[in-house]
Amino acid sequence: MKLRVQCDLHFQVDTATALILMLRPLSGAQQRITQSSYLVEPDVKITESKDSYGNFRQRLVAPVGKFSVRTCAEVITTEAIDSAPGANFVEIQNLPNPILPFLLPSRYCESDRFGDLARKIVADALPGYDQVSKITDWVRHSIKYIPGSSDAPLSAVEVHQRGYGVCRDLAQLGITLCRSISIPARLVVGYLYQLEPMDMHAWFEAYIGRRWYTFDPTQSDLRGGRVIIAFGRDAADVSIFHQFGSGCILNTMDVQVNLLTDTL
Amino acid sequence: MKLRVQCDLHFQVDTATALILMLRPLSGAQQRITQSSYLVEPDVKITESKDSYGNFRQRLVAPVGKFSVRTCAEVITTEAIDSAPGANFVEIQNLPNPILPFLLPSRYCESDRFGDLARKIVADALPGYDQVSKITDWVRHSIKYIPGSSDAPLSAVEVHQRGYGVCRDLAQLGITLCRSISIPARLVVGYLYQLEPMDMHAWFEAYIGRRWYTFDPTQSDLRGGRVIIAFGRDAADVSIFHQFGSGCILNTMDVQVNLLTDTL
Amino acid sequence: MKLRVQCDLHFQVDTATALILMLRPLSGAQQRITQSSYLVEPDVKITESKDSYGNFRQRLVAPVGKFSVRTCAEVITTEAIDSAPGANFVEIQNLPNPILPFLLPSRYCESDRFGDLARKIVADALPGYDQVSKITDWVRHSIKYIPGSSDAPLSAVEVHQRGYGVCRDLAQLGITLCRSISIPARLVVGYLYQLEPMDMHAWFEAYIGRRWYTFDPTQSDLRGGRVIIAFGRDAADVSIFHQFGSGCILNTMDVQVNLLTDTL
Amino acid sequence: MKLRVQCDLHFQVDTATALILMLRPLSGAQQRITQSSYLVEPDVKITESKDSYGNFRQRLVAPVGKFSVRTCAEVITTEAIDSAPGANFVEIQNLPNPILPFLLPSRYCESDRFGDLARKIVADALPGYDQVSKITDWVRHSIKYIPGSSDAPLSAVEVHQRGYGVCRDLAQLGITLCRSISIPARLVVGYLYQLEPMDMHAWFEAYIGRRWYTFDPTQSDLRGGRVIIAFGRDAADVSIFHQFGSGCILNTMDVQVNLLTDTL
Repeated sequence: MKLRVQCDLHFQVDTATALILMLRPLSGAQQRITQSSYLVEPDVKITESKDSYGNFRQRLVAPVGKFSVRTCAEVITTEAIDSAPGANFVEIQNLPNPILPFLLPSRYCESDRFGDLARKIVADALPGYDQVSKITDWVRHSIKYIPGSSDAPLSAVEVHQRGYGVCRDLAQLGITLCRSISIPARLVVGYLYQLEPMDMHAWFEAYIGRRWYTFDPTQSDLRGGRVIIAFGRDAADVSIFHQFGSGCILNTMDVQVNLLTDTL
Repeated sequence: MKLRVQCDLHFQVDTATALILMLRPLSGAQQRITQSSYLVEPDVKITESKDSYGNFRQRLVAPVGKFSVRTCAEVITTEAIDSAPGANFVEIQNLPNPILPFLLPSRYCESDRFGDLARKIVADALPGYDQVSKITDWVRHSIKYIPGSSDAPLSAVEVHQRGYGVCRDLAQLGITLCRSISIPARLVVGYLYQLEPMDMHAWFEAYIGRRWYTFDPTQSDLRGGRVIIAFGRDAADVSIFHQFGSGCILNTMDVQVNLLTDTL
Repeated sequence: MKLRVQCDLHFQVDTATALILMLRPLSGAQQRITQSSYLVEPDVKITESKDSYGNFRQRLVAPVGKFSVRTCAEVITTEAIDSAPGANFVEIQNLPNPILPFLLPSRYCESDRFGDLARKIVADALPGYDQVSKITDWVRHSIKYIPGSSDAPLSAVEVHQRGYGVCRDLAQLGITLCRSISIPARLVVGYLYQLEPMDMHAWFEAYIGRRWYTFDPTQSDLRGGRVIIAFGRDAADVSIFHQFGSGCILNTMDVQVNLLTDTL
Repeated sequence: MKLRVQCDLHFQVDTATALILMLRPLSGAQQRITQSSYLVEPDVKITESKDSYGNFRQRLVAPVGKFSVRTCAEVITTEAIDSAPGANFVEIQNLPNPILPFLLPSRYCESDRFGDLARKIVADALPGYDQVSKITDWVRHSIKYIPGSSDAPLSAVEVHQRGYGVCRDLAQLGITLCRSISIPARLVVGYLYQLEPMDMHAWFEAYIGRRWYTFDPTQSDLRGGRVIIAFGRDAADVSIFHQFGSGCILNTMDVQVNLLTDTL
């Protein structure tokens, strides 16, 4: 299927403020970008680079006044998402090197503190995919998904205590539980077609059976129509925008995902 | 200045043929992409990756029949190009690590065979920028620039013997002479506004005074309006397209560079 | 000065256990390895790789029974450490790309929660080196350095509440405070000559004035004789050893640092 | 088997000369370093880095007078080398990204000029391993292996015309023929136990059946006892030492490979 995704950010800037943005989806195994645009108003210098996970990162200084970032892309992506019940746990010694960082605890995923809970949740599941399914189901049932319920990211410990959260919170708790039983897991930020209410979305992937698989604790069925913007250990690594200092405020953020008639 | 650049390739494919293409310009220190599109017809799977120099590389299998690749981008680039007469030679031990490959001989730049000629050309020039200027002038006057005069890339030895060549040939001879006196140099492939006749263009950069500077032996004045697609050691690394086997033929290649009214 | 550093780990292994170790110092700007050895007993397969920060990482499966890792190196390092009072804060937009991860919050460094405290500590200091000096002094005076007082790593929030900690705890609190005022900071794990009591050591570096500078909140004078094993965001990234599962126990760890007569 | 390998270089330096050396074997899939030493006399600053293929590279300035580099390592390596008659050709579109550079022509491997010869040599062989075997046999029988017969590297075209060469020449011709039929191939430089006469050695690897396999056109049987120092496209990338300018002369090079009694 072909989607047109769009994200516009409108800031009010009181002091010139450095921003790091991640808003450019990248062609990859799961999606292909056929058109994209990236406009800032007023027009300032943007320095683009790739982070160590392969995401595009844009750095700029937002000038005083109104400042907007408008991005859009046309993307070919899949309607269905692979699942693989029974897929094997991969032994640590057999993991490819670039996977290793996703085993470690990170800012919002204190996997060094969740071993007991995780082992209880996956108790009788087969090592691998089935464990991650159990974890995803557990998160879906234990943590209430309330879009808009938090602003700044919370850590897995905090989300677990609180009992509710946004998509990012549920995804990060899932990641934390996976890592605590030595399954590599990473946060994905992107678009989901027909998400309700429409917004940026976050879900997670776990590395099982020698590849990454998608899990989404906020959605009851694992559907496609996903456009990935960035991967990372957690929201510290992948943030739609990260501002340095308190000199600017995001006034509005407009996200749209539309299906394009298949004219290819 | 803002340019709209476009390159369309039309192939006749007799046997399904693997292609590696480099046709997507990247935002960087010297240019910024505000819009871009990349379309293939018929629509086939494209795998995109970055090479070790940071260029985007697209891999695909062209199916039997007519096959087209249409790419275009809107790019903000500079009208003037920096020059720096007097800029210093950088000692080998002070070169940043990623610069080192550009000191070595490569497929079309046999810098291990040009030391005597290079030393003669730069005889009384100051080490650094002025040596590269001498080399560029020498290439411009010694090798006749004849667009369309060769198809497959020639090496510096071959170009030197032949006495004429396309932009790539002159650039590679310049690179070869620089490297033979221990100045890092790299091939640049891209677009040049108002190039006559319009086509893809190639020029080179040399590393002096702790940064890369642009040199173009085919143009008498060093003007801007350049959109960079890829950097590399030579044309073996950076090829608009590289086909594996003889199963396809490029029928036409259409290149356009237009100035956009500055509405930003 | 030339040091001989040695670290021997002796494990009791009940279930075959995957380990990731970081125990091989690397030649770099600040030190040069002239000899090194890395022996395991019994001899098992080791897979060595570099992480995204450039550290060497060894992966292996410790077999049931007694298992030892013995490493040693002869290293030329400096007696004095550079300091640079007055060195400037580097604006976000001017930071080199590889520095950016060290601005972000991480597992044990919740810099997104320490902005108010950090601004109070550095109140009247010049932006840059002097701010980091203030932070280091503040940590040294506010958190009691008690070697051996904790086993598993604590986060900056936890250390701040507790009021005492091991070298790693103090370093991580220093890092957290730096990042919360947009100064990149990273954890360093290594050896320190004449450390009392002798053990592995941890300190931190901050990026100011376009380079990294060393800070050590556990030592009253900033002396050299340091051999660096690894850098990272925090102890989640750089751990002398990281074990997966609870199948093995570290029985003893023997660390030695000796001055070699300067025969070079 | 466990080998002790050693390479000592003794230079006479007339003008201070920048050198780039590759003399430190690295632990990897095929070998494990248990001890190593790297000494220079007089002792000068060495900057060590990894190139884009993962090899260690040492940069230094050799001072006027006598200058020596002494390196040695104890290495666990295999006695037998894997072979895989019948292993499949890997389609271009299925090659992992880091393999792609080894498909391209390079300084001493003009694979863009050898297509006809290569197709003739492999005429009736199955695509993949068997083609590379044919190529290796053809090189072994067509090019006389004469140790010491050349000093500076020759290109495949030159070696083919000349009809004899050193190990590097035969390896590079083999690589060239492989690449010209779209099989990735790379040069390996290292030690070979019981090589006659003892010296540094060069052979090649081809990527077939989803991994690299070893081929050695200078040896009639494919035996192990190999210690790898570096991989690259050809001798331009991997040179035991590369000197900039003509200010120093290698007086002697002493290479030793000894079997250690298996006391592990």
